[in-house]
Amino acid sequence: MKIGVDVMGVDFAPAAILDGAILAQRELSDPDTLVLIGNSSVIHEHLHGKNVDESLFSIVHTNEFIEMGENPARAYTQKPNSSIGLGFHLLRRGEIDGFASAGNTGAMLVGAMFTSKSVPGIIRPCIAAVIPTMDEKPGILLDVGINPDARPDVLYQYGLLGALYAEYVFQIENPKVGLLNIGSEDEKGNLVTKATYQLMRGTTEFNFIGNVEGNEFFDNEKFNVLVTDGFVGNVMLKQAEAFYHLAIKKNILDPFFEQFNFENYGGTPILGINHTAIIGHGISNAKAIKNMILHTHRVIEVKLTEHIKAAFNNDKN
Amino acid sequence: MKIGVDVMGVDFAPAAILDGAILAQRELSDPDTLVLIGNSSVIHEHLHGKNVDESLFSIVHTNEFIEMGENPARAYTQKPNSSIGLGFHLLRRGEIDGFASAGNTGAMLVGAMFTSKSVPGIIRPCIAAVIPTMDEKPGILLDVGINPDARPDVLYQYGLLGALYAEYVFQIENPKVGLLNIGSEDEKGNLVTKATYQLMRGTTEFNFIGNVEGNEFFDNEKFNVLVTDGFVGNVMLKQAEAFYHLAIKKNILDPFFEQFNFENYGGTPILGINHTAIIGHGISNAKAIKNMILHTHRVIEVKLTEHIKAAFNNDKN
Repeated sequence: MKIGVDVMGVDFAPAAILDGAILAQRELSDPDTLVLIGNSSVIHEHLHGKNVDESLFSIVHTNEFIEMGENPARAYTQKPNSSIGLGFHLLRRGEIDGFASAGNTGAMLVGAMFTSKSVPGIIRPCIAAVIPTMDEKPGILLDVGINPDARPDVLYQYGLLGALYAEYVFQIENPKVGLLNIGSEDEKGNLVTKATYQLMRGTTEFNFIGNVEGNEFFDNEKFNVLVTDGFVGNVMLKQAEAFYHLAIKKNILDPFFEQFNFENYGGTPILGINHTAIIGHGISNAKAIKNMILHTHRVIEVKLTEHIKAAFNNDKN
Repeated sequence: MKIGVDVMGVDFAPAAILDGAILAQRELSDPDTLVLIGNSSVIHEHLHGKNVDESLFSIVHTNEFIEMGENPARAYTQKPNSSIGLGFHLLRRGEIDGFASAGNTGAMLVGAMFTSKSVPGIIRPCIAAVIPTMDEKPGILLDVGINPDARPDVLYQYGLLGALYAEYVFQIENPKVGLLNIGSEDEKGNLVTKATYQLMRGTTEFNFIGNVEGNEFFDNEKFNVLVTDGFVGNVMLKQAEAFYHLAIKKNILDPFFEQFNFENYGGTPILGINHTAIIGHGISNAKAIKNMILHTHRVIEVKLTEHIKAAFNNDKN
């Protein structure tokens, strides 16, 4: 398996990314190769400085990259040789099996939509995040940012995408899919969630358990997958981050709260496109980069994208 | 000043409510009277058992009340002598200056809309909640539950309602009003927040400071008032409650986290109706009931409702 890693992804320096790649490489076994996409002389120098054997990695050279503040669509179009641009082209040509970047999230999404494209039958791809819970199994929240205005049929598909992600990547059998709502009764909600509830109710495509409220957010006895639109998902995820930073400020040093440090999770796949692409949003340290790469490995290994394609090809959508 | 208190509001027993009323009465000064609305013999017996002078209170007798699980609109119509029904009728007749209930929230809202009615010029009333922050000044979040599908013009009005609430009740001068969104730039958001941003930008009616993201939720250096629709507000408020319960479960006993126990705040006024009505949602202990009653007193004392009427009568809406 070949995993492309965007070495130019973070503005400040590729050092953390390369350190993370070195850590990840040590945990991978022989046929797996990391393909480092970035400035080859910087990569050579860094690996040399760390006494790491360069032959353990493949290197694809580029000097171009998309900065964090750049307009994603414009930059992706105008910089075909950017590390993100090259990553998606290598994915499409089958030269890598997955691509991970902690760089410009918008540019990753543009690459996903323009170069990889949606799986036939999927209306809108989405991104998922992991919610810490009291249990060892995480909760999956989706969408967390692609579609701030998701229609009921789009939210319905998120239920299936989330269930497949939970089942194959996190080995949760028959995952419980909940709809984030403002009441437990089926007539509760805004116009979109009420209509979505009617679509999900009685489905045989996934295990719909009904509405889930905000105060059940960490309760994975109730649900494994939580469906919402990209606006609400983004707000909830960021609120959880705010809580973590508050705990840090208040000097509450509990290992449980460390779970709210989303850096630890290492990234979220773009669910519903034709290839495996992982976004490591806001990641800045080597451990998080390592986790992002290992998560990419996991998503490829369990053939999540193939399972999604199969599920939606059988689908009546 | 006369403050009506729904003694029948909580299913289990009026004991906590009466204990809370006794505590509140001790903190109020002479011309202020609490009007206890409920079963008079139960009230007499409870006050007698606590050696409290009954003449300190007024009592309005009723045996009828709306249970927590009842359909709010139907119950409000079919039980005109319920404690909530009587509370709104006393309000409308000017026999009390404010009404507080920890009972059926839906029935309180029905009473607000059908009996008290919206202030002319206000499209949809809303309810606000207090967000704990690092500072001693709280943040105000609104709407937290009336309008899950709020239009941009409705959200715009929430900016003004929240500013008036923050200014008069919490004595925050020229309160900073933010729009909850998924990015700081003005073009970010879903369809509704993008349109709302355009309405709020450049307004002279309140101090609009732009978009606020979920990770800034506890940051009241940035904002004092945070505007969102009732769906997102409800989800965020409940997520904050979930954090609190998580901290309790993890035995993290920090006084700061006690602020996330929303019982302590004692209730949220229904902003934009013609009278002062306070909902003590989910309240179950005497201290919280006391706080609900004292908050009602504060809202009446600063003439919040009159300030809202004046602001919207001058308004071009």
